[in-house]
Amino acid sequence: MEKERIWKGRIDADPDSLAAKFTSSIIIDRQLYMQDITGTAAYIIGLKDIGIISGPELKKLLRGLEKVRNAIEAGKIDFNKYEDIHSLVEYELLAHAGDVGAKVHTGRSRNDQIVVDELIFLKESLLKALNLMLKLEEALLDKALKFQGLALPAYTHMQQAQPVLVSHYLLCFFEKFIRNIYKLFDTFESCDYLPLGAAACAGSGYGLNTDLLARLLKFKRVGANSMDIVSSRDYIIDYVYCCTMIMLNLSRFCEDMIIYNSGEFSYINIDDSFCTGSSIMPQKKNPDILELIRGKSALVSGSLMQAITLFKGLPLTYNSDMQEDKKILFNAALETMQSIEIFTKVLENIEFKVLRVNEDKAPGFTCATDAADYLVRKGESFRNAHHIIGRIVKYCIENEISLEDIPLEKLKEHSSFFSDDFKDAIRLEKCISSKKTVCGTSEKSVEKNISRGIGKIKKLSQTANDLKSRIPDFDELLSKKN
Amino acid sequence: MEKERIWKGRIDADPDSLAAKFTSSIIIDRQLYMQDITGTAAYIIGLKDIGIISGPELKKLLRGLEKVRNAIEAGKIDFNKYEDIHSLVEYELLAHAGDVGAKVHTGRSRNDQIVVDELIFLKESLLKALNLMLKLEEALLDKALKFQGLALPAYTHMQQAQPVLVSHYLLCFFEKFIRNIYKLFDTFESCDYLPLGAAACAGSGYGLNTDLLARLLKFKRVGANSMDIVSSRDYIIDYVYCCTMIMLNLSRFCEDMIIYNSGEFSYINIDDSFCTGSSIMPQKKNPDILELIRGKSALVSGSLMQAITLFKGLPLTYNSDMQEDKKILFNAALETMQSIEIFTKVLENIEFKVLRVNEDKAPGFTCATDAADYLVRKGESFRNAHHIIGRIVKYCIENEISLEDIPLEKLKEHSSFFSDDFKDAIRLEKCISSKKTVCGTSEKSVEKNISRGIGKIKKLSQTANDLKSRIPDFDELLSKKN
Amino acid sequence: MEKERIWKGRIDADPDSLAAKFTSSIIIDRQLYMQDITGTAAYIIGLKDIGIISGPELKKLLRGLEKVRNAIEAGKIDFNKYEDIHSLVEYELLAHAGDVGAKVHTGRSRNDQIVVDELIFLKESLLKALNLMLKLEEALLDKALKFQGLALPAYTHMQQAQPVLVSHYLLCFFEKFIRNIYKLFDTFESCDYLPLGAAACAGSGYGLNTDLLARLLKFKRVGANSMDIVSSRDYIIDYVYCCTMIMLNLSRFCEDMIIYNSGEFSYINIDDSFCTGSSIMPQKKNPDILELIRGKSALVSGSLMQAITLFKGLPLTYNSDMQEDKKILFNAALETMQSIEIFTKVLENIEFKVLRVNEDKAPGFTCATDAADYLVRKGESFRNAHHIIGRIVKYCIENEISLEDIPLEKLKEHSSFFSDDFKDAIRLEKCISSKKTVCGTSEKSVEKNISRGIGKIKKLSQTANDLKSRIPDFDELLSKKN
Amino acid sequence: MEKERIWKGRIDADPDSLAAKFTSSIIIDRQLYMQDITGTAAYIIGLKDIGIISGPELKKLLRGLEKVRNAIEAGKIDFNKYEDIHSLVEYELLAHAGDVGAKVHTGRSRNDQIVVDELIFLKESLLKALNLMLKLEEALLDKALKFQGLALPAYTHMQQAQPVLVSHYLLCFFEKFIRNIYKLFDTFESCDYLPLGAAACAGSGYGLNTDLLARLLKFKRVGANSMDIVSSRDYIIDYVYCCTMIMLNLSRFCEDMIIYNSGEFSYINIDDSFCTGSSIMPQKKNPDILELIRGKSALVSGSLMQAITLFKGLPLTYNSDMQEDKKILFNAALETMQSIEIFTKVLENIEFKVLRVNEDKAPGFTCATDAADYLVRKGESFRNAHHIIGRIVKYCIENEISLEDIPLEKLKEHSSFFSDDFKDAIRLEKCISSKKTVCGTSEKSVEKNISRGIGKIKKLSQTANDLKSRIPDFDELLSKKN
Repeated sequence: MEKERIWKGRIDADPDSLAAKFTSSIIIDRQLYMQDITGTAAYIIGLKDIGIISGPELKKLLRGLEKVRNAIEAGKIDFNKYEDIHSLVEYELLAHAGDVGAKVHTGRSRNDQIVVDELIFLKESLLKALNLMLKLEEALLDKALKFQGLALPAYTHMQQAQPVLVSHYLLCFFEKFIRNIYKLFDTFESCDYLPLGAAACAGSGYGLNTDLLARLLKFKRVGANSMDIVSSRDYIIDYVYCCTMIMLNLSRFCEDMIIYNSGEFSYINIDDSFCTGSSIMPQKKNPDILELIRGKSALVSGSLMQAITLFKGLPLTYNSDMQEDKKILFNAALETMQSIEIFTKVLENIEFKVLRVNEDKAPGFTCATDAADYLVRKGESFRNAHHIIGRIVKYCIENEISLEDIPLEKLKEHSSFFSDDFKDAIRLEKCISSKKTVCGTSEKSVEKNISRGIGKIKKLSQTANDLKSRIPDFDELLSKKN
Repeated sequence: MEKERIWKGRIDADPDSLAAKFTSSIIIDRQLYMQDITGTAAYIIGLKDIGIISGPELKKLLRGLEKVRNAIEAGKIDFNKYEDIHSLVEYELLAHAGDVGAKVHTGRSRNDQIVVDELIFLKESLLKALNLMLKLEEALLDKALKFQGLALPAYTHMQQAQPVLVSHYLLCFFEKFIRNIYKLFDTFESCDYLPLGAAACAGSGYGLNTDLLARLLKFKRVGANSMDIVSSRDYIIDYVYCCTMIMLNLSRFCEDMIIYNSGEFSYINIDDSFCTGSSIMPQKKNPDILELIRGKSALVSGSLMQAITLFKGLPLTYNSDMQEDKKILFNAALETMQSIEIFTKVLENIEFKVLRVNEDKAPGFTCATDAADYLVRKGESFRNAHHIIGRIVKYCIENEISLEDIPLEKLKEHSSFFSDDFKDAIRLEKCISSKKTVCGTSEKSVEKNISRGIGKIKKLSQTANDLKSRIPDFDELLSKKN
Repeated sequence: MEKERIWKGRIDADPDSLAAKFTSSIIIDRQLYMQDITGTAAYIIGLKDIGIISGPELKKLLRGLEKVRNAIEAGKIDFNKYEDIHSLVEYELLAHAGDVGAKVHTGRSRNDQIVVDELIFLKESLLKALNLMLKLEEALLDKALKFQGLALPAYTHMQQAQPVLVSHYLLCFFEKFIRNIYKLFDTFESCDYLPLGAAACAGSGYGLNTDLLARLLKFKRVGANSMDIVSSRDYIIDYVYCCTMIMLNLSRFCEDMIIYNSGEFSYINIDDSFCTGSSIMPQKKNPDILELIRGKSALVSGSLMQAITLFKGLPLTYNSDMQEDKKILFNAALETMQSIEIFTKVLENIEFKVLRVNEDKAPGFTCATDAADYLVRKGESFRNAHHIIGRIVKYCIENEISLEDIPLEKLKEHSSFFSDDFKDAIRLEKCISSKKTVCGTSEKSVEKNISRGIGKIKKLSQTANDLKSRIPDFDELLSKKN
Repeated sequence: MEKERIWKGRIDADPDSLAAKFTSSIIIDRQLYMQDITGTAAYIIGLKDIGIISGPELKKLLRGLEKVRNAIEAGKIDFNKYEDIHSLVEYELLAHAGDVGAKVHTGRSRNDQIVVDELIFLKESLLKALNLMLKLEEALLDKALKFQGLALPAYTHMQQAQPVLVSHYLLCFFEKFIRNIYKLFDTFESCDYLPLGAAACAGSGYGLNTDLLARLLKFKRVGANSMDIVSSRDYIIDYVYCCTMIMLNLSRFCEDMIIYNSGEFSYINIDDSFCTGSSIMPQKKNPDILELIRGKSALVSGSLMQAITLFKGLPLTYNSDMQEDKKILFNAALETMQSIEIFTKVLENIEFKVLRVNEDKAPGFTCATDAADYLVRKGESFRNAHHIIGRIVKYCIENEISLEDIPLEKLKEHSSFFSDDFKDAIRLEKCISSKKTVCGTSEKSVEKNISRGIGKIKKLSQTANDLKSRIPDFDELLSKKN
């Protein structure tokens, strides 16, 4: 039976063996077995509802599906006998439930069935990503709390710009990731519709109760147009886009950490258990994991390109090109999930070895803006203040002294606004505490943002938790058999 | 004065002329002049609020800005004298308002200023895209109403699959575009935050009233982290992603229309005023516009790749790489807007030359599924019914007859379930009316979906209209000068 | 022993288990086992040459490598115990050859070793691709010979333009693929250099005889700069670029064939054994394979993007990001090889069902250019002739007649140049035979191009065959042990 | 006349004004005016050769073309009146040369004409790129010569690995760029074929002397298949690929220089005239140009994606999608040329502020490999030596001492192989001189590679110079008028 193709309509010849191998997707879509079984279970309950199958037949079929599930999980099924997961489930069901299995495909097509499988997978996967991202945010907030009181220079153009709190630095990524999290929620909402009823492309010829099916499979809406349902994979592109944006932000975080881990910067220490050495240079302590994540960001953004190009200029409705979507999806999902998870662990194992804010050291030239602000507060226009400080910095560099070491008289040569309180104004602590706008690096703003962040994550975790009830469950469907 | 660079800090040498040309962005960011002037107007009102400038100075500066705006719009300003739009506005303001202009940059940096400009541009552009997309949807609904009663085959694998209503076909794209519209709304919300107060990267050293600034510039929220504000361009990537998804769906619509416009398909007629001919082959009637849109979908998706790659592995916070973001943004915006607009016009000038549903013709082999459904309704299992009809179709092809022309006896050789009512069951009208699931192609479902669509567009148009109040207006700000 | 990491320098802690899994590449690079063993065999011969190991040690080590190879091929080695293929070979060699195995890494690093493995793989893979492409070209020439005498319309803008020979159509792709073939040869040449001697990045501290190593491993050149050798993967990007260009041309060929296979065009017949049917629509005969190849072209071009993005802005020299290169390479190679191979088989099973050239039918309006050329030959300027024929075609369309059916008097109303010989001038046979430029579709030009093509493929096949001698062979190296 | 479209065949209606604007390409392809005029000049010489135009007509037309060229260059032509450059040249020629201009399009189509224009542009542009790249290589060799005797650490994983000569570092990029240069040459060869004779797609109906045309236009070969000629843009993709690979290597060079320019690394000093400051932070000295180039690498690789996606699944032969190819081409060309040129200037203005090789300082832990090599030379196996040195490095780090400061007795605790000569073996000078493989960083190898490089560039410059004779010249063609 395994050689019988479910699509064998007017086609006589057996497929060429190379052709059969080339068109088979089982090696990829086998990952969807649970989704396919779950979707099928709901569908047959729906078929019973409209009288296509009887109560006893339903019982038989659900029991059959249960056996198929068990056989797969016990490793008792040879996947390679089948061309795809739908054929596998249908034929195994025939084997386990008998002839009534031949009714399962009534009013359904592989064209809508695969969308069911993919949407269930997506919703599960989005929820998983959400939970991982929320954990990453918690780790960030933990670190931000822990490193209060430490400062490092913020960089622009890879040049020291202004001192900021380490916590402020970490909250920067907290914000980036929050945007990613919202995108995950949005994508969950946008892919939460029932595709059943679309059949091959024109709609099912049977009066299916789509509301019931949606309820059984926990879909929020019923899909609106059969041709759209079988021709669209927007949800996959959206999902891979979410992954891309997450990985993009991770790649920037990694880039910073890799640089901060260099001997020249030495801002951080990564625990040995998250580094590797060199096979030839024993002194190395390589941030492999961070580099790998940065590399994987290229993989995932290339996956996005694959998903987009796949659909460029593709005519309606279903075309076999779309079969390749699952490779793209599964790869992007795997790389992204792994990266978020391991990055969180690395982050938990990073220590910052930077200045204490209250150490009374001057923050090098990164206080230059504060020096200019000082002059402005004394009455100078900003543009002039900027020029004056610029000249003074140049003087310092040429004479290899720091801003705080210039005698007041020397300063007064540049501007009469300088006075005794200048040195205090450019102390690290002042440079930081002066940035008191809502988004600034002052301790107060940062504290407020940490506690806001904690509240936000608490709320979002609850929302994520609520999504669990929108994931269908095979065992729950099984219980409908009586 | 024009040779003076606003960033001239400790740098002595004049820039090399080739370097100056290479680093200049004025040829691109001049498009942002209105946004820069508007952002500056709000900012100086904010500076007055915290006492950095006086009431009379504010008046002078606002009048100065007005003059700068007028000078630009009268073509009286030589853009090429300046390296970027911020320098232009600042120096022209100095020229038009006098020395007080030197205060404008107090507590602000080009790093947050450019974000203000871009976010205002984005919100305007998103609103424009929304309105264009809503018009396209209206055109689709108009056509769907107009073409009720016409049918064409739906295709899978570029093979005739099942008959559908032309209206159903059009609603398929209505659904795709609705998703694009929601994405535009989501992107609007996600990029609606005030960047001012971030300054260079650590936050402003002045106690700016960011709530006031947000109100003046119509931003819904105040940005939360200064480093994030100056380092992130997620909003641009999101915007270009919206463009990509719109163009992707347009590319598929165009592909179909190009094929339907071929002599072999001949399903549509495009009005001459939207076609071109050939310089050498006088018989041609080329769907250039549709081809160009399909081509532009490649440009826009490549732009997305540019935006993403630009940020891959980029360290915090601001880097000059980001200066290139505007080219990407403006190109993607231009190609997309033009494409939506012209596509809508082409669509309005397309006629469908296909079958009337009630013409009583049989729909070729596209009724095969209905033939199988017929057997199922008579008691056959679907899988068997599929095989039986498959064999009959093969017989028809070999004998060059159609399904409706096979005598009943012949049919009965294949299955005893066949009877007199078979021919009626596979009439075009029946094939269509039988697909009565919510998403199916039956007249009733389609009618319902059209009127739902009309309601939805009405509501979304209202929502889009409400967004106008979230776009800042320079003239309104000018009125604050007293 | 398996838990011992070869890079364990100053790192104390055991790697975190999640980290170990994340950084491991064995699941991917196990494919390179034969290349790693071969590279190692040559290297130890080189070590003997400079006296690092003795003759008996060499013997022991080569025998050890042989055993490792055999153990792997007998499935006796648990790959998952190792983090990468280099560790596997080194530790298994230690196990099979004893302590002398600890000398194998002298003056070599995983940084140059992986390049050896990849370059050998690439050269093998390029040769395989060359042979597949040459077979495809042969199949094209066979078909071109077979289908002489058949004509179909050439299309521009998906509109019938001018009649061409089917052979001419096929030769179009012959030319495209020839360019791909040249690119494969070029890439082979550019990646044919010995990386050994580069060690970690600064060059080997031992006086390796790189000429000998190059000879043993069949590399044409010796790499010129150690930092370049360990930091560059240009060869992988070049390879994936070759794949992309091949797939791009295949995607266009597939697109045409998919359209020609539609019921509306019906130009070709694909043998049943290379089509599939529908699970719900028994009349379908779907060109799945062609659609899949078109889809895979998106995968491969996305892989190119992955490879490029991976290296964007990557600092020198080796970074772990580069570990991801193999996934990209292997995926692109697999999809491309499979696609070329199966496409060749499909092509061999396609029949053209189009017009015979000498059937004396007129080629519809596709003879319009010839009609204009007729007028030009009679004395009209081309631009005027184009306008005259344009008006006549319009007249024909409105009156539903063909060009050949217009009475001469009617034609003369449009131009006095028309005379009796017009009908003959626009016969299909004439339209084709008149295109006698070297690149034109006349029988003569096409025949000449077919025989030129046959000669070219013969020569290129010989060149490809010669490349075999530039692929290293482990068994040949083994023979050096005495 | 300007409203007359040259393609006006059977199309009646005037184009819709929005449609006309949308389909017009003049704003882009006006850059090709000289190529179009040159191609046309050669073509009419070819038409005279086969008797389509007379000697006096040829004279008139060439004079007309000369006038058109002059009018364009004097700014006397309103480009916006025309839809594309071909129409412009044709109609302006009609205006300047009279009715005989109507013959110019005989046997030619815009489909082959645009390929002529593009191929001429490409050859010119490739030659320009070659010269710029050769200059960059010369600058690199100059710097390599100049900085002999300076050393810096080579990095792997952004960790100091081993000391190398600055010259060696620079030669690394020399090698990368050499590969780019070869690719430019290869692309020149592959795009050097005459497209004329292909006409619309089937070949010209006139017996054109294509050998003559190729000679006149300096094309090496005559294109082989008309359908391929008008449907392929492989040459554009190849060109943009060249640009991408150049930019990719530049992006890595820039990344290194940006990091080396940081205060933490401080390896280089970029001349002030190639840096910019900050508008708010006066101490900054930003490597804008390098960042911009890194950013532009994202633009160019996105352009490659655009070019590839444009052709994915595009049916034969010409489609208007292809009109967008010029935007892609011109953008990629512009960004790349500018980047190479300015980068060369920046490079010339960079000083290295690193260690002198003979300063007798120890190179920190970057001598660790040499320390291990020391033990191997004394008789230890490499793997053991690696472990021993690893432990010693760890000891040094914990005790904050350097390798050279450990007393011999302490060393002997780790291995009895240590002796008096150890300290000398790990001096910077020794670490460098020991890497004497051909590709290693020893002074000798580097010197040899510099002089080899000088020879190579000399030869390649000659080859590039020879290509000038393969660029057509309008004035030379004009001289044929008598």
